[in-house]
Amino acid sequence: MQLLENLLSQTNDRPKTVVIPCACDNHVLLAVEMARKNGLIKAILIDDKNKLLHLMSSLSIDPTSYEIIDESDVDFALSISMLVIQNGRADFLMKGLIDTKLILKKVLDKKYGFRKSNRMTHATLVETAFYHKPFLLSDAAMNIDQSFETKIEIIKNGVGLLHKLGINQAKVAVLSAVEKTNEKLESTLIAQQLKELSLNEDFYGAIIEGPLQLDNAINKESATHKQVDNLVAGDADFLVMPNLEAGNIFYKSLMFLSEAKSASVVLGASFPIVVTSRADSSVTKYHSILLASLLCEKKDI
Amino acid sequence: MQLLENLLSQTNDRPKTVVIPCACDNHVLLAVEMARKNGLIKAILIDDKNKLLHLMSSLSIDPTSYEIIDESDVDFALSISMLVIQNGRADFLMKGLIDTKLILKKVLDKKYGFRKSNRMTHATLVETAFYHKPFLLSDAAMNIDQSFETKIEIIKNGVGLLHKLGINQAKVAVLSAVEKTNEKLESTLIAQQLKELSLNEDFYGAIIEGPLQLDNAINKESATHKQVDNLVAGDADFLVMPNLEAGNIFYKSLMFLSEAKSASVVLGASFPIVVTSRADSSVTKYHSILLASLLCEKKDI
Repeated sequence: MQLLENLLSQTNDRPKTVVIPCACDNHVLLAVEMARKNGLIKAILIDDKNKLLHLMSSLSIDPTSYEIIDESDVDFALSISMLVIQNGRADFLMKGLIDTKLILKKVLDKKYGFRKSNRMTHATLVETAFYHKPFLLSDAAMNIDQSFETKIEIIKNGVGLLHKLGINQAKVAVLSAVEKTNEKLESTLIAQQLKELSLNEDFYGAIIEGPLQLDNAINKESATHKQVDNLVAGDADFLVMPNLEAGNIFYKSLMFLSEAKSASVVLGASFPIVVTSRADSSVTKYHSILLASLLCEKKDI
Repeated sequence: MQLLENLLSQTNDRPKTVVIPCACDNHVLLAVEMARKNGLIKAILIDDKNKLLHLMSSLSIDPTSYEIIDESDVDFALSISMLVIQNGRADFLMKGLIDTKLILKKVLDKKYGFRKSNRMTHATLVETAFYHKPFLLSDAAMNIDQSFETKIEIIKNGVGLLHKLGINQAKVAVLSAVEKTNEKLESTLIAQQLKELSLNEDFYGAIIEGPLQLDNAINKESATHKQVDNLVAGDADFLVMPNLEAGNIFYKSLMFLSEAKSASVVLGASFPIVVTSRADSSVTKYHSILLASLLCEKKDI
């Protein structure tokens, strides 16, 4: 399983710099140290300096390899992070030991002008031995509201990410529990609307199909069996989830009941944000750092 | 991965008899033949006899091993199936080449008195190398309405199945995308209500917990990380899906993006119904026949 790593190693420019408010989290620090040691990133850590030095020492991480900003107040640490990015001293943000909501609120504060999309959305790039290429899934961890309007933003943000990874004609599968539109199942109606949208106007060059069941989106044989015949079936680049629960359970299924690899970022600001969960492995965190770093590289695409 | 097969081989009574209306389906016939050859079932096939003999010949299945009822009219074939079961000549039903809705409508026809639950529900027993025991998941394929009332029926039917498999104190995890109740996410409120229900009255001796995320329901380490500490966390027997889309995508993820095994039945009538999908492998169909057969064995529990 090297597809994801190959994809994420496209970066060949200078290492990107990540800023981490409330950096005192051993899982985060270990993943960052792994990426730094491999020459892939630099990092600015913000937290109570004594506490941070103590933790780094216990993890055998050399603090002299890092820039440390001594600030223990959470809100002020977040504000400093924003200034660090505004001044071009860091390229992207990673969540330390802090509630994701607080980070997003700060990023969306109008005075910084960081908002680039109507919605911040969560996207995960997945590699599994059962599919011939990495695929994107969204939204598995952020938006409770996944109405038609939100799904447009989820697709816009996700297709933008795929473009940066070199996938120009992204094949987007809008998933549901069935393939036929059914008035009683709202996710099928939304999927149908999204498909029509892409037929009527160019949606970043992406091809949108739906409603599709998961097996028909990612398994050609299954699609053929069910006579589902379109360009996306069996070859999807991007799986748009019907709702947050389905997205979360699908993601967790891939991570905990199979040997899939993944990298996640929050999209919608002018820089990617790495939001790690305690349940994520350090490998997932490391891959997420690489993905964010790569997206910074391709900023202007 | 022998857990599921061991579980399904508990039957030691006489082979059960399955009746199959509209039996002209090669996938169905192959799975039935496998179970029959292993001495596990007998089968009554209903369809146009000439068509059936032709298909069986092409599949190298000996027709003299089966009872064949020559009836090509779909509705009449279904009615005959009901009489066959009513007269005790068959123990359970398997879907041939026919719409599931038509079968359910016939089974629920009051004149037969087959309805045993307020809702027919779909349940899948899953075995995966990533979990220490088989678990049940429901509802992944049938109920669009998965409101509080429907979920009670889903749980009742599923816990009844687990009892028959010898799991008396079933650990039931009601899943959502988060662990905390959130007024904006209805599935968390329903999960909370279901948990309270089981605290206030005995729910078939089952223990209900929720809302839980998938990883905390089936991974002890992940539950400990997130300080989710209850009897169900990391040891669930039964995963109650937040909605049909999540159930369907989870099931498809297990079947198409991992090496899980499964067996599915429709519950809620006085006999189990095997409803196979074209996308299911013949192994899944075979396991489903074994599960239905076992449930008949334990009918009176």
